[in-house]
Amino acid sequence: MTEHKVVILSHDAEVYQKIILGQGLKGLSIETCQDVEGGSPHLKDCDIIFGTPEIASKVLHKAPRLKWVQSMWAGITPFLADGLRRDYVLTGVKDVFGPMMAEYVICHLLMHERISLKRFEHQLRKLWDATPPGTLQGKCIGIMGIGSIGKAIAGAAKFFGMNTRGFSRTPTHCDGIDDSYLPQALTAFVQGLDYLVCVLPDTEDTSGLIDESLLKAMPDKILIINIGRGNVIHEPALIRALEKGKIAGAVLDVFQEEPLPCDHGLWKTPNTIITSHTAALNFPWQIAPIFASNYRKFIKKEPLGYRINFDQGY
Amino acid sequence: MTEHKVVILSHDAEVYQKIILGQGLKGLSIETCQDVEGGSPHLKDCDIIFGTPEIASKVLHKAPRLKWVQSMWAGITPFLADGLRRDYVLTGVKDVFGPMMAEYVICHLLMHERISLKRFEHQLRKLWDATPPGTLQGKCIGIMGIGSIGKAIAGAAKFFGMNTRGFSRTPTHCDGIDDSYLPQALTAFVQGLDYLVCVLPDTEDTSGLIDESLLKAMPDKILIINIGRGNVIHEPALIRALEKGKIAGAVLDVFQEEPLPCDHGLWKTPNTIITSHTAALNFPWQIAPIFASNYRKFIKKEPLGYRINFDQGY
Repeated sequence: MTEHKVVILSHDAEVYQKIILGQGLKGLSIETCQDVEGGSPHLKDCDIIFGTPEIASKVLHKAPRLKWVQSMWAGITPFLADGLRRDYVLTGVKDVFGPMMAEYVICHLLMHERISLKRFEHQLRKLWDATPPGTLQGKCIGIMGIGSIGKAIAGAAKFFGMNTRGFSRTPTHCDGIDDSYLPQALTAFVQGLDYLVCVLPDTEDTSGLIDESLLKAMPDKILIINIGRGNVIHEPALIRALEKGKIAGAVLDVFQEEPLPCDHGLWKTPNTIITSHTAALNFPWQIAPIFASNYRKFIKKEPLGYRINFDQGY
Repeated sequence: MTEHKVVILSHDAEVYQKIILGQGLKGLSIETCQDVEGGSPHLKDCDIIFGTPEIASKVLHKAPRLKWVQSMWAGITPFLADGLRRDYVLTGVKDVFGPMMAEYVICHLLMHERISLKRFEHQLRKLWDATPPGTLQGKCIGIMGIGSIGKAIAGAAKFFGMNTRGFSRTPTHCDGIDDSYLPQALTAFVQGLDYLVCVLPDTEDTSGLIDESLLKAMPDKILIINIGRGNVIHEPALIRALEKGKIAGAVLDVFQEEPLPCDHGLWKTPNTIITSHTAALNFPWQIAPIFASNYRKFIKKEPLGYRINFDQGY
């Protein structure tokens, strides 16, 4: 007997549908649509939406029976927009991005140590560039945001023999973190770092956290990596610091405005790598099981996993 | 009482000397020299040489009392040249290059998965390139040569969730290797691989092992990484395979001739990265303790660690 109806809202809706059909979920009818327009007819009587924040947040008002939204992405900011209803349970996605985010971070740390881009430039000019590379062994990395992604990064850093510091709003124990810092110790946290990786969510507290004064407190050798949210970095201050050589470099996956506008100063800022929001992918085979697991809890009226607190924003 | 005399032969001889003086070795007098010429006066009465193969192999005949040579490098081919004496104990360097070699390999695997060089080219043209990256999770890597370096690479590959195959002359058990292959199964070994990493030493058996027929047996998607010795790859066959797109790419640190000559075809071969023999560095703080440890054995007439068999060549 069908008691529940989910509308899958994603460009990959049919891929998700196929995986979910294979999970043997009871009492569930499934509809798919790939964009905001297509979803309308099915939304009227669905009680569940499983979709990307971008699409799902725009159709909340078309689903009067809505009880639960499972987001396909970790960043759920679109659901927090002013005026949007909050009379449903919103669940997010966690614990799946850690390995890919760790791959991203380790990739860029190693490219930095091995001077890979410069060496490749020399290769194009047929130059035998035997400049000695560095190593991650013994280097110090600071990680802002110690959720599942921060922990995965810390674990990878420890694998490569690095020293690790964690920065979080509340004291957080984590195996891979050597030393923990709270907000009042932010300046101490950045001192002496070789690498700073930011995986903070988009909240009022984090907005503009990496600003001119914090950049000034950082050592010249530091490479900053931002894979959290673009709002955390004050972009004009970062550009100035890079142009003046006050920090060694920046690897940026997220920005205040995305796609980064053609005329944005970051495109021509020295020692900057722009990776166009590709740090972590949502693989349907990783995300669909989260929906399935939560659905099983939903029909048993158990608390759902990864529930978002609308006030905290994560 | 001074009973033994070592001559340190290296451009960094004084750095090594300083570290060794700190080890409190008994009965040892130390002389340093930075090149072939400088060493002569002290070689006459030394019984030990601690040096780079390049320099040390050229002065063996000047040291009539020589009993033991500790190489500073892993690659000891210069000592095997025809006509050179073999009436001394030659010891090599092992177990220290694993972590840096693993960093090198993981760096290039991740750059390949994340299309880093192409993405950077697009950045220079201010293009927002959101091409999805791949992941190492579930990919298959084949490692030729399961010594300490091969094991370190296997361990790092497992950390990132890869499947691992090992290729070696004799059956070798290793925690990080899922499946082992012997020489008669070489073709089976390469089938289905995403990555092939070669860390084989320079011996008669390994020369030209990666030739036209083996390249033909490889899947199109394969990326070959050579950080062993240049002789293992038949370079003209590799160039043809890359030009025809029969394999995805090559990352080469070692070559038949080094530095790679300006007019060598590899400089303009597509999908090739040339890293100019920088995969692993010899850090004096890692190498000097190997000498010290062996010296303690030497004075007690115990067998030395990492002894080279002149006939096997490793």
